[in-house]
Amino acid sequence: MRYELYYWPEIQGRGEFVRLALEEAGADYLDVARSGPRGMAAMMRLMESRAVRQPPFAPPFLKAGNVIVGQTGNILLFLGPRLGLAPRADAGRLWAHQLQLTVADFVLETHDTHHPIAGSLYYEDQKPEAKRRAALFLRERITKFLGYFERVLARSRGRWMTGGKLSYVDLSVFQAIEGLRYAFPNAMSRRAFRSPRLMALRDSVASRPRIARYLASDRRLPFNEMDIWRHYTELDR
Amino acid sequence: MRYELYYWPEIQGRGEFVRLALEEAGADYLDVARSGPRGMAAMMRLMESRAVRQPPFAPPFLKAGNVIVGQTGNILLFLGPRLGLAPRADAGRLWAHQLQLTVADFVLETHDTHHPIAGSLYYEDQKPEAKRRAALFLRERITKFLGYFERVLARSRGRWMTGGKLSYVDLSVFQAIEGLRYAFPNAMSRRAFRSPRLMALRDSVASRPRIARYLASDRRLPFNEMDIWRHYTELDR
Repeated sequence: MRYELYYWPEIQGRGEFVRLALEEAGADYLDVARSGPRGMAAMMRLMESRAVRQPPFAPPFLKAGNVIVGQTGNILLFLGPRLGLAPRADAGRLWAHQLQLTVADFVLETHDTHHPIAGSLYYEDQKPEAKRRAALFLRERITKFLGYFERVLARSRGRWMTGGKLSYVDLSVFQAIEGLRYAFPNAMSRRAFRSPRLMALRDSVASRPRIARYLASDRRLPFNEMDIWRHYTELDR
Repeated sequence: MRYELYYWPEIQGRGEFVRLALEEAGADYLDVARSGPRGMAAMMRLMESRAVRQPPFAPPFLKAGNVIVGQTGNILLFLGPRLGLAPRADAGRLWAHQLQLTVADFVLETHDTHHPIAGSLYYEDQKPEAKRRAALFLRERITKFLGYFERVLARSRGRWMTGGKLSYVDLSVFQAIEGLRYAFPNAMSRRAFRSPRLMALRDSVASRPRIARYLASDRRLPFNEMDIWRHYTELDR
C-alpha cells in the first residue's frame, strides 16, 4: 500500500509526526504537496472537493486507498498498528493514543507562544502578548509537560514511552523536544538535566538508522519561522 | 460495569462530554469528585499516586475496572462502542474520533478567548488580550468551525454527524454549541441561521428523553465563570 500524506509543503508542522512514523517503518509514501509542481493544487482540490463525504478540517490528512484520515493523533492511531509502531493490546493502544493527545496539547501550547491572539495575524502584530505568554509557558507549562513525560518514562516497563518497544509516541516526543530545542535553546539547555530519561530517548530516536538517514536527507525540512516551532530570541529568556 | 468518572466538581468543562455519553446510554457511573466530601481527595490521590503506572496528565479520566483512560477524546474512543454510541465499522469509528478531535480543538480555542496568555492568570489580568482574541475568534474561527460541522452534516447519509445513528460526536457538538450560546449569546444569535442543520441537531439532542431528564436534573451543573465557556459581555460584541 502506498500512503499519500497531505500537508503544507514548507514546514515540518504537524505533518512531521506522521512523516517520522512513515520513515521509521520504511513505508512507501508520497508527500503529495511536495511531490511536484501540481502537488499543492492536488491537496487544495481534495480539501475543497464536494465529493469527499468525510472532509478533513485541515492538513495533515492521509489517504490510504479509499480512506481519508484526518487529525494528526487519529492518523497515528490508524497507522500505528499497520506500521508496527503501536502496542499490540487494545489497552496499550489506548495508552499510546492518550500520550499522543497530550503531545498534541503540548505542541499547540508551544505554537501559541508566538501566536497568542490569532493564527491569522503576523507575529509582529502580537509581539507584546507573545512575550507575556512565552514567559509563562517557559516558567510553568514546559515544566509541567516535560515533567509529566519524564514521569511516564520512569514508570514505563522499558526504555520507551509505552514499554519495551518503540512506538509512534516516542517519535512524536522526540519531535516535540527537537522543536523546543530549536525554539527555546536557552530555556531547554537550562532544564535538560531535569529530564534525563527524555533526553536519552531523544538521542535513541535520533540514532535509529532510518531516522538518522531521514534527518540527514532533504526530505527533512529545516525548522523555520513559518512553523509551529519558531526561534525568536526575545521569547527565549 | 460501574464506571468512575474523575473530573473537577464545580464545572461542566471537558468532563461534560463524557457525562453526556454516559447519561445518554443510561450507564451506571459514579462522578467521583462530586460523590461526597471525600470525592475530591480520592481524585487527587489517584492523580498523585506513584502506583499508577499510566498516569493521566489531567482530568477528566475514567476508571473502568483496572483500566484508567485519560484525554477526553480517548475516553470517548474507549466508551463509544461499549455504550452503543459509536459507528460499528472501524472506518466509521475513526471518522467519529476525527470529528471529536476537531470538537476538542474548537473547545480549546473557545476557552482561550478569555485566557489567551495563561491558564494560571486570572481573566482580569489578561482582559485587553482577551478582547483582541475574542473579537478575532468571533470573526474568523467560529465561522470556520461551525461552517465545517454544518458541511459535515450536509454530507452525512443521515441526520447525525456520522450517519443515520446518534453517536457521542453528536452529544459533543451539542455541548460545544450550548457552551457558545452561553458565552456569546449575541454572536450566536446572529449566526444561528447560517447553521440550520447544526441548530436542528442541537434541538434533537436536547429533546432525547435521557438527555432532557439529565439537563433538568441537578447532575447538570450550571454554566459559570470558572468554566471553559464564560459569559463576559465585553467579549461578546
